[in-house]
Amino acid sequence: MYPKNCWYVACTPDEFESKPLARRICGEPMAFFRDGDGVVAAVQDFCPHRGAPLSLGYVENGNLVCGYHGLKMGRNGKTHSMPKQRVGGFPCVKSYPVEERYGFVWVWPGEPEKADTDAIPHLEWAVSDQWAYGGGLYHINSDYRLMIDNLMDLTHETYVHTSSIGQKEIDEAPVRTRKVDGEVQTTRFMDNVTAPPFWQANLRSKGLPDDQPVDRWQICRFTPPSHVLIDVGVALAGHGGIDAPADKRVNSIVVDFITPETDTSHWYFWGMARNFSPDDETLTDTIRQGQGAIFAEDLEVLESQQRNLNEFPEKKLLMLDIDSGGVQARRMIDGLVQEESP
Amino acid sequence: MYPKNCWYVACTPDEFESKPLARRICGEPMAFFRDGDGVVAAVQDFCPHRGAPLSLGYVENGNLVCGYHGLKMGRNGKTHSMPKQRVGGFPCVKSYPVEERYGFVWVWPGEPEKADTDAIPHLEWAVSDQWAYGGGLYHINSDYRLMIDNLMDLTHETYVHTSSIGQKEIDEAPVRTRKVDGEVQTTRFMDNVTAPPFWQANLRSKGLPDDQPVDRWQICRFTPPSHVLIDVGVALAGHGGIDAPADKRVNSIVVDFITPETDTSHWYFWGMARNFSPDDETLTDTIRQGQGAIFAEDLEVLESQQRNLNEFPEKKLLMLDIDSGGVQARRMIDGLVQEESP
Amino acid sequence: MYPKNCWYVACTPDEFESKPLARRICGEPMAFFRDGDGVVAAVQDFCPHRGAPLSLGYVENGNLVCGYHGLKMGRNGKTHSMPKQRVGGFPCVKSYPVEERYGFVWVWPGEPEKADTDAIPHLEWAVSDQWAYGGGLYHINSDYRLMIDNLMDLTHETYVHTSSIGQKEIDEAPVRTRKVDGEVQTTRFMDNVTAPPFWQANLRSKGLPDDQPVDRWQICRFTPPSHVLIDVGVALAGHGGIDAPADKRVNSIVVDFITPETDTSHWYFWGMARNFSPDDETLTDTIRQGQGAIFAEDLEVLESQQRNLNEFPEKKLLMLDIDSGGVQARRMIDGLVQEESP
Repeated sequence: MYPKNCWYVACTPDEFESKPLARRICGEPMAFFRDGDGVVAAVQDFCPHRGAPLSLGYVENGNLVCGYHGLKMGRNGKTHSMPKQRVGGFPCVKSYPVEERYGFVWVWPGEPEKADTDAIPHLEWAVSDQWAYGGGLYHINSDYRLMIDNLMDLTHETYVHTSSIGQKEIDEAPVRTRKVDGEVQTTRFMDNVTAPPFWQANLRSKGLPDDQPVDRWQICRFTPPSHVLIDVGVALAGHGGIDAPADKRVNSIVVDFITPETDTSHWYFWGMARNFSPDDETLTDTIRQGQGAIFAEDLEVLESQQRNLNEFPEKKLLMLDIDSGGVQARRMIDGLVQEESP
Repeated sequence: MYPKNCWYVACTPDEFESKPLARRICGEPMAFFRDGDGVVAAVQDFCPHRGAPLSLGYVENGNLVCGYHGLKMGRNGKTHSMPKQRVGGFPCVKSYPVEERYGFVWVWPGEPEKADTDAIPHLEWAVSDQWAYGGGLYHINSDYRLMIDNLMDLTHETYVHTSSIGQKEIDEAPVRTRKVDGEVQTTRFMDNVTAPPFWQANLRSKGLPDDQPVDRWQICRFTPPSHVLIDVGVALAGHGGIDAPADKRVNSIVVDFITPETDTSHWYFWGMARNFSPDDETLTDTIRQGQGAIFAEDLEVLESQQRNLNEFPEKKLLMLDIDSGGVQARRMIDGLVQEESP
Repeated sequence: MYPKNCWYVACTPDEFESKPLARRICGEPMAFFRDGDGVVAAVQDFCPHRGAPLSLGYVENGNLVCGYHGLKMGRNGKTHSMPKQRVGGFPCVKSYPVEERYGFVWVWPGEPEKADTDAIPHLEWAVSDQWAYGGGLYHINSDYRLMIDNLMDLTHETYVHTSSIGQKEIDEAPVRTRKVDGEVQTTRFMDNVTAPPFWQANLRSKGLPDDQPVDRWQICRFTPPSHVLIDVGVALAGHGGIDAPADKRVNSIVVDFITPETDTSHWYFWGMARNFSPDDETLTDTIRQGQGAIFAEDLEVLESQQRNLNEFPEKKLLMLDIDSGGVQARRMIDGLVQEESP
């Protein structure tokens, strides 16, 4: 269950550099490619001639050429040409509004006439040279909302990510959830704690001591349809926490774009944006590898949770205070889905 | 189709030594662990918080800790605690009567109040120091009753286990099936035959000649719900067969505990108990390896038989004299299932 | 959807040389073996005793012995014998008319009494010592008719087989489709073109120059139920094309026997018959390897096309002039299926 009249992250440009990319988004099989102006395009991955996937073909002069019998498909879903054929009467396939921005390709799987690129959220960290970003992509066999739940309740770090970012105090610190300006915010502050290994490494990378008490914070921000950006960081204890001066803290934004593939699978674009040492590509790689390993720990949990929910659809899950972020996010999603239903 | 108000072998203690064990028994997903007293416990493998499998977690002070958000589950299926939460109103999950005995964990997947550990069969070979036991576990994609059929009609040894325990005389010797004291017994005696390779090896291991005619016997004993214990052996010919003095014979018990996983899959606990050289662990290993290889030959047959039965459900199978053991065993199972149906 | 009262190629004799062969044809699971006279036989792959696949067994004195309990099945689907059993009343399993001819085993999966071996097409290239043949077998997860379409519209060579037999002129040359003597013929002539790599190699192997313009031809011949034989070749340009004298041309027959396994999978027997250097086995191997690599390029296209058609059953495919061969072939198949329906 997902709204379709909204922008989802579909892929990154490197994924269709050498050949078209096949990707299913919100149940729709799409083929991504660049048109003659170098602008990204997405059409239904179905050749109107004999039904082969267009993504198996190649791009020529900005058209997607079917790799079976050479039909040329334009970015608008209309057949451009086919050897020795008049194509005027050929049926169209769907084309999808797409926009390349912030290093991602955003797609609108719903009604094209409603697409408005102004609705793509502004991401300051993606355009400022004060910030660096590194990330990756996982395919996960679970409802995308289980990932939203996961990210809006970080108490799981204590159990799933024990050796990297988890620590007992996450469980113990009170959590506050509220809606602010169309986003769901879950906030947790842990003062005067020991930094877990991941943050110790980041302190070191910024030249700060890693063996002193820190104030740690996590602010999870959900915006529809399924983006979760998390302000995270630590500051040397007693300097104001999240408001400490830059030379006393290290912080970053955990970036999560969560895109439904089907009802029970999704694409998970994860990454981290940081505003220290933005030009240090080695550091970017190190963080990416660390984060990739940590986030991979969630996969087994989510996929087996999905199988359990499939088996026991009648069981009602609990909605505790820690679950409130996910609950409110789902409520916003439900609202969008309802708006779209006739 | 299986009765649930009875004891099945679920696992062996080594399987949940270092972490909880997930195993489905009679359609029920269970998590096995040891409580604070070191006593084995089994609960439904579903966390009442968000549905993650409890078996992904770990054990702490005798509670099973969910590996997602730290809910602590007691052996009774009630939540013991959860960080910062009042758990009194949390829904329970099922817990299952379990009993560790004879080196196995026995589970009662049905109505807990009817469970009576006195109903677990007495296994003299498992408690006497005159006996040694070695065995293993196979997962097989077939109805568990096909394995019962298999073990109650040993003519298949001639064809499936040609090079180890099969011999032509099994086919030719008359078989007798009867019900005795609540068990189905299938009996076959083959006098004055050549010992097949498996028994030649056992004769040698007891210091007996392996090149002389022997009297061979097989007594298959089925008891509900799905245990098959088989008295097998050979004696130097003319010394009384099964009643020959110990220094003229070598014999053992083939142990088969057959536990339904789903309607079309089962767990097969196989092994062999012997009352000679009980302290010779090398011999135990050798026999286990030999038996493991022999019993693996049945897997392909049973799984492909199951696929054929799925495809042709209308075909009636034959029930010959040799099938009588399986037929009578199934009749006892049918009776138990009927007793349980409302 | 396939007619069953017709001859299909089922397998090649080497496939059941050492043990029986299990193969599903037109939905029917069959076991192939040789009877006591060395004549090929096919019976339903289901033992009437307990349902095990007969193909897991072995052949003894021309009977197929079940590998589970030793039932002996004759080529007529009647149980021949079983140790210690009277088998007169045992139910029969189906047996299938089979014929070994031209290096293939042909099977009639429909009503046996209608089978007439005279209906097996005459294949001159398979019996004449002027010809050599080499080929192989692929299993493909698509409706067998997608393969017929593929072979009756060779414009796909331009796109799928770019580096071997494809060339732009295939697209550009007009195609003619017609029904002649119960076969569908699709004809294409390309005069004065450059030979593509596959044909250059063949020209060289016959001692002809590979750098001169050629006249190229393709005549696809479909005969029911699903055989496609294609006359292909090139002649040095201006010598009469397909009618050029033998020392000015090189040509062969692409052989395609397409046998339904299920509604969405098939067995594809592909090969090439040539009437030059028939005794050069190295050449036969070289051609087989080249053709095998080329034809493997079709697999991904057909299987992904099938998945797309499954997903969008409501989409009507186009039927262009180039598709006419497939369309007419399917029409003949439809007629046969209709004849068989009650």
